[in-house]
Amino acid sequence: MNTPTLEHLSTRREQRPVPPALLAALRERFGERCSTATAVREQHGRDESTYPMTPPDAVVFCESTECVAAAVKLAAAHAVPVIAYGTGSSLEGHLLAVHGGLSIDVSRMAALVSVDADDLTVTVQAGVTREQLNREIKDSGLFFPIDPGANASLGGMAATRASGTNAVRYGTMRENVLALTVVTASGEVIRTGTRAKKSSAGYDLTRLFVGSEGTLGIITEVTLRLYPLPEAVSAAICHFPRIADAVDTTIQIIQMGVPIARCELLDAHAIRGVNRYAGLTLREQPMLLMEFHGSEAGVKEQAETVQALAREHGGADFEWARTPEERTRLWAARHKAYFASLQTRPGCRSLSTDTCVPISRLAESINESVAEAEAAGLPYWVVGHVGDGNFHLSYLLDPNSPTEVATAERLSQQMVRRAIRLQGTCTGEHGIGLHKIGYLVDEAGAGAVEMMKSIKRALDPLNIMNPGKVLAL
Amino acid sequence: MNTPTLEHLSTRREQRPVPPALLAALRERFGERCSTATAVREQHGRDESTYPMTPPDAVVFCESTECVAAAVKLAAAHAVPVIAYGTGSSLEGHLLAVHGGLSIDVSRMAALVSVDADDLTVTVQAGVTREQLNREIKDSGLFFPIDPGANASLGGMAATRASGTNAVRYGTMRENVLALTVVTASGEVIRTGTRAKKSSAGYDLTRLFVGSEGTLGIITEVTLRLYPLPEAVSAAICHFPRIADAVDTTIQIIQMGVPIARCELLDAHAIRGVNRYAGLTLREQPMLLMEFHGSEAGVKEQAETVQALAREHGGADFEWARTPEERTRLWAARHKAYFASLQTRPGCRSLSTDTCVPISRLAESINESVAEAEAAGLPYWVVGHVGDGNFHLSYLLDPNSPTEVATAERLSQQMVRRAIRLQGTCTGEHGIGLHKIGYLVDEAGAGAVEMMKSIKRALDPLNIMNPGKVLAL
Repeated sequence: MNTPTLEHLSTRREQRPVPPALLAALRERFGERCSTATAVREQHGRDESTYPMTPPDAVVFCESTECVAAAVKLAAAHAVPVIAYGTGSSLEGHLLAVHGGLSIDVSRMAALVSVDADDLTVTVQAGVTREQLNREIKDSGLFFPIDPGANASLGGMAATRASGTNAVRYGTMRENVLALTVVTASGEVIRTGTRAKKSSAGYDLTRLFVGSEGTLGIITEVTLRLYPLPEAVSAAICHFPRIADAVDTTIQIIQMGVPIARCELLDAHAIRGVNRYAGLTLREQPMLLMEFHGSEAGVKEQAETVQALAREHGGADFEWARTPEERTRLWAARHKAYFASLQTRPGCRSLSTDTCVPISRLAESINESVAEAEAAGLPYWVVGHVGDGNFHLSYLLDPNSPTEVATAERLSQQMVRRAIRLQGTCTGEHGIGLHKIGYLVDEAGAGAVEMMKSIKRALDPLNIMNPGKVLAL
Repeated sequence: MNTPTLEHLSTRREQRPVPPALLAALRERFGERCSTATAVREQHGRDESTYPMTPPDAVVFCESTECVAAAVKLAAAHAVPVIAYGTGSSLEGHLLAVHGGLSIDVSRMAALVSVDADDLTVTVQAGVTREQLNREIKDSGLFFPIDPGANASLGGMAATRASGTNAVRYGTMRENVLALTVVTASGEVIRTGTRAKKSSAGYDLTRLFVGSEGTLGIITEVTLRLYPLPEAVSAAICHFPRIADAVDTTIQIIQMGVPIARCELLDAHAIRGVNRYAGLTLREQPMLLMEFHGSEAGVKEQAETVQALAREHGGADFEWARTPEERTRLWAARHKAYFASLQTRPGCRSLSTDTCVPISRLAESINESVAEAEAAGLPYWVVGHVGDGNFHLSYLLDPNSPTEVATAERLSQQMVRRAIRLQGTCTGEHGIGLHKIGYLVDEAGAGAVEMMKSIKRALDPLNIMNPGKVLAL
């Protein structure tokens, strides 16, 4: 097994810093939009992972695809690394400048390029966040469902193949990105895909870039599928005696084909954090938080089916979020579970695991991971997009304690090994980043990883696109 | 525009025939399973396109992934082309041995490797056909929805990113292939993806191979998503005064988010063919053939919504296929439309177009294409997976008449140009093959096609994997 060791957790790599000539050229081209200020560099050298800060040498704030292309062309001329930066919410060290180089901040690329409501599509610049998108299209009667915990940028979400709570019904970024504008490693601009819902035209470059974590090119625009707001929405919570009961209920919901829109597991620890953070009074006991989308009758029917299944597994009566405001409050709390948990232990960092397994193996996968966490004595909490077989155990650790870091890493390793053994994946939605390079080899095999490396070398011969991530070249 | 000319329609290319030493090695390794018989070669040198027969030099009938790997290794040692062959139902010349070489017939790889009903997944060998799969899993309560017109092999369907009538609800092969076993250009065996429903682990090799048309490797096993058989299914037909009315109804169905499972357009010509072929008595007038999946109440509700929309556009009362047998007969007739139409003009071949556009442009796209076909005077018929914005005009032509071939090609060209102008694609589900290499450049742009070529060169440096297809190297 090619698992990360504490040695791997160091971010030190061979440095390829920005030379003075490049810096001069960047300043000439971008003026104030190129910064080497320490505070700016430091902000761009960290994410939500447990890695130490690893800042880039300079940051360019881009406002257009042409700007990104110009910056990449200059960097390529000096064989200097470029790392795209959206909101900094990565969990696997994606943004860290482990070889030095240039951070390309696309957060100012925050315009909706084209809303095509009649086609249920939208094209956005890469820096638009998921919440901004839904705010801006609210009056169209449409919405975009993909919702990772953070209010991430849509460019970053595409780059990490993100998903979230709605994926069980609406799919992930893999299914919902129709087309991309990409700046290649040589600074050319290409367009992948079209606005047609399906296509058999050539290699699927769109899905090659979705999930490539900035290592093959920089995504500057994203064309997405939208969905009509459902006629009816209802959300309910259901408490269970044990996590296993909630999981078994979920497995049956999926196997029966109930078109549930959201099916989230929270354990007692996660609920405790959420209660404190959001001032809620949820019972601190394993819970499914569910949402049903459809017609009035359809939503009622789905909920009745699920309530019946839940009862068979000791589930309590559904408690309903009856108003849109109640619903929003509940989901906002769920989305804040990560930040809520951080507050339960001042100064801590969270190591968040992210396996996904075939649905029939979900109970085994969660139960054993929880037992291991209990035995290890490190504070932890569980949330899961369990309808997809995807869940997160997060360990709260003192980043200055090598013992705690090592324990969390060992627990994570055991979980990943189990997921791979159960024919699942080492990451459902967070990506490989720095942390899971070895796990990718365990999961995909040396031959498949060699093929990924061939593609990387073909598209980025200078290895300047977010080097040191996804693959060990 | 890089559109095909009659010159392009010739299949003559630089030949790289199988040398005697390779033939001897193949015979030693495969015995009777390697054939150079004229009838066998000719059978493997044609498909359902209008191209002249272009046989390979030899055919190897493989029974396992290891067999395919061994054959590719031998071919690679001699830099001889290899072309995977499933059922021969391609429409764009995918199977033609334009550079000579070896046809690798996987039709004997027809076993279900693993049915994982509890996970809603199945793994099949590449030669399993879609009808065989559904027959063999019938008792599991699950089904596989993707259904191109032909009873194609699942390996071929993955390789061409096929879809069909259910794609509007269930997606295409892009969304429904979870993992693949692939023999690479050097004869290595890799596995892409896992049985987890989603993953962010590294480059999406699965979707790179889905739609790569055998040009990057040979797919030998396919892991697919399955779906629970819906509690209720109902199918209805609805006649409309004009094609435009049926199309406008469809656009509204999609924009409203009705979860219709199938929404097929047939014009009067297509119905005439189907009536004769299948002994039906459908009114020979534009028609939508629809299917609704869900709960009893849900199906009823969907149908009522759609009937109301249809009426607004002059649609007649729904006629219901009330029994499973009636339903099967109707859909079998729809699937046979292609072969039915061929029988309406003895000795003819069909040039089948395949554009897909954003749904709001569908009416413009179909109406203008039909008007052009009418003006040209060539017999034609229209069927469409219109819920996806995808439709086919098929021109029935005398393959020995250069005028008719040229007219069909011109009509097809006008249609493709229109689709690209409307932000759609030159092929929704048939693939690029030989025929649409120029159109791919028009659609994707030179930069994106150059990137595809870089990938092709990286993964197949000898250019032996189905050379001459998808890309002009």
